[in-house]
Amino acid sequence: MPLLVMKFGGTSVADLARIENAAKKVQAEVARGYDVIVIVSAMSGETNKMVGFVEGTSKLYDAREYDAVVSSGENVTAGLLALRLQEMDIAARSWQGWQVPINTTSAHSSARFISIPRDNIDAKFAEGFKVAVVAGFQGVSAEGRITTLGRGGSDTTAVAFAAAFGAERCDIYTDVDGVYTTDPRITNKARKLDKIAFEEMLELASLGAKVLQTRSVELAMRYKVRLRVLSSFEDTDETSGTLVCDEDEIMESKVVSGVAYSRDEAKVTLVRVEDRPGIAAAIFGPLAEAGVNVDMIVQNISEVEAGSVKGATTDMTFSCPTNQVARAQKAMEDAVAAGMITYDGIVVDSDVAKISVVGIGMRSHAGVAATMFKALSKENVNIKVIATSEIKISVLIDRKYMELAVQALHDAFELEKA
Amino acid sequence: MPLLVMKFGGTSVADLARIENAAKKVQAEVARGYDVIVIVSAMSGETNKMVGFVEGTSKLYDAREYDAVVSSGENVTAGLLALRLQEMDIAARSWQGWQVPINTTSAHSSARFISIPRDNIDAKFAEGFKVAVVAGFQGVSAEGRITTLGRGGSDTTAVAFAAAFGAERCDIYTDVDGVYTTDPRITNKARKLDKIAFEEMLELASLGAKVLQTRSVELAMRYKVRLRVLSSFEDTDETSGTLVCDEDEIMESKVVSGVAYSRDEAKVTLVRVEDRPGIAAAIFGPLAEAGVNVDMIVQNISEVEAGSVKGATTDMTFSCPTNQVARAQKAMEDAVAAGMITYDGIVVDSDVAKISVVGIGMRSHAGVAATMFKALSKENVNIKVIATSEIKISVLIDRKYMELAVQALHDAFELEKA
Repeated sequence: MPLLVMKFGGTSVADLARIENAAKKVQAEVARGYDVIVIVSAMSGETNKMVGFVEGTSKLYDAREYDAVVSSGENVTAGLLALRLQEMDIAARSWQGWQVPINTTSAHSSARFISIPRDNIDAKFAEGFKVAVVAGFQGVSAEGRITTLGRGGSDTTAVAFAAAFGAERCDIYTDVDGVYTTDPRITNKARKLDKIAFEEMLELASLGAKVLQTRSVELAMRYKVRLRVLSSFEDTDETSGTLVCDEDEIMESKVVSGVAYSRDEAKVTLVRVEDRPGIAAAIFGPLAEAGVNVDMIVQNISEVEAGSVKGATTDMTFSCPTNQVARAQKAMEDAVAAGMITYDGIVVDSDVAKISVVGIGMRSHAGVAATMFKALSKENVNIKVIATSEIKISVLIDRKYMELAVQALHDAFELEKA
Repeated sequence: MPLLVMKFGGTSVADLARIENAAKKVQAEVARGYDVIVIVSAMSGETNKMVGFVEGTSKLYDAREYDAVVSSGENVTAGLLALRLQEMDIAARSWQGWQVPINTTSAHSSARFISIPRDNIDAKFAEGFKVAVVAGFQGVSAEGRITTLGRGGSDTTAVAFAAAFGAERCDIYTDVDGVYTTDPRITNKARKLDKIAFEEMLELASLGAKVLQTRSVELAMRYKVRLRVLSSFEDTDETSGTLVCDEDEIMESKVVSGVAYSRDEAKVTLVRVEDRPGIAAAIFGPLAEAGVNVDMIVQNISEVEAGSVKGATTDMTFSCPTNQVARAQKAMEDAVAAGMITYDGIVVDSDVAKISVVGIGMRSHAGVAATMFKALSKENVNIKVIATSEIKISVLIDRKYMELAVQALHDAFELEKA
């Protein structure tokens, strides 16, 4: 029997009516002849309520108890969806993480999968069960304690099950109907993509297109699990949504697939840093230890000022999330105090945004950067920092030009055309 | 290390402040030198919410899924209490039913204990842990599915742990400060008992004094677990509350320990039932099958009416909860239609109450019934039905005299005196 994994997020199971709606989508796949493994999140709001309870009880909490508490919501949804399916005469049962078992590391609240043995669930399918409803986001450690995977972990659970059971596809039901060329709230020319390559989705996910958790896309790419993103709230069929798949499946990929943005970026410049071997490590080591997620890094050419008593200096610029700027400054001041680095000053620009164009076609096409810079220049948008990877070009610009820049780039790469 | 079991019900862990309060009571026992096993209920309201979800999803629900859903609340409380204890620097951890494991039968929603192996929890005590916080009301079947014990099952869990671990005592923290000679809302002369025998508590529990679940008292009696009932909301020490114990521990037991009442009783009389061997079975068999909880039964002497064409007839009276009267009538009509019984009519009196005096001293003291009937007669309370057991005398009376009767009997047996 072909097998499908379906995943319903918190808004898709927010109340009994939506759980019934999810059950109907499962029923349709069973009618198409699939055995189905359904991964469910907690009803929306429940996990936050549990986190609030834990934080209200204990400041430096034991992550094992945190996991035992916050994992409760998924168990409730799993039981309710199984009941709803039974009402529709579909042989279904719920599975909590320890019952499968979903074996994970003991890194509570950020556990990683070790193994998902198929025996127990396969035995039920062999008995005639059609659907296994599995509580997402959780697992069990070798010590028999309940673990969780970190927020958004249910996407990752779904992909892991699809890999373990050799599923034909992993359908992620959510509150959007697919992956778009850019955010439709910014331009109504944004177009839903039929297909997108894993690598592209990974860049888009980490760049702020919040459709899929980065980690689930990484896992899907590694195990070649075909992921489909589609809406819980619309009628859907086998062609709905966006398929995230290997690039080999995408016949005519465009050079650029999408334009992503991230609003909450800040640009930090250390002015006239003493330039010597090891200086980058002396800066970014302490930042990493302070938990600052440094994204782009630019180092200007080194220069020696006329008449200066100092040696060669350079300006070092990096970007990080706005809410980590204070932490970054503190880390730099501590590094100065410890004699690790010297600089003349820190300049922080918190009013910036990051815009990125992403596409696997870039690998074989020159001129993408030129087109991008020309489009921005035409709108008088000044570029503050540039960073590139094989399939992505990112720039930092003033935040006030963010929407304009996204629209200009969407037009320049003709993303509205299929 | 001496070991204590403590149990906190839903109102005692209703919010984070009350969980903190419960933690302080546990802390006091740890300070006294005990290892402690704490059994917790769900925060009050949570289990009802879950039951509502299940009933809103499925009419004839799968009890296995019901159990998986409704058991979630206890897991949350267990984790939160463990966290609170850790904040107080007490080595504690939570245990879900399957982690202990609490092995039960597969009778979902009304499972019974099979075994509670001590190994896992004992190993943690040996490591230096002081407190095991165990989710009440739940267990795990041989099939690895989550089971529940039925409502109020957390009391039973507490007693079962006390028996399994040879606890010195099982303290049940609740919203009353002990067991009283009668309901203090009916007479302010009601006095808290320091001690009460298991048998007496059992009669009082099943007669409507809702302090402890009948089943937990039965289990405590069988395994001679000393139970203490005391308040979560008051300062308590080792002499607080009421100790429910073996009668050998009660040096000077009074003849009567308490007066119980039950408001929602109805009296049903079948008039002129054909009297023949097997007639009682022909009446009470169908009632039992219809799920009617028959309590008292009275059969009048048989008579043959002058000139009657019928044989000997008798009046058969029984009592049952008011909300089961319709079901009882239907069962009797069906039995007539099936030719199993004949009678001239059914008389239902729904305005009755049951009053009972309970005391193990009755076994060796005559005259209790006489004192009871005299006290009621003095107040012109008519007795409609009488039933007796070794340690209890119950009467049905008009409901409007209920409070008066309780007060009169409380006075007659001088229960206000210690």
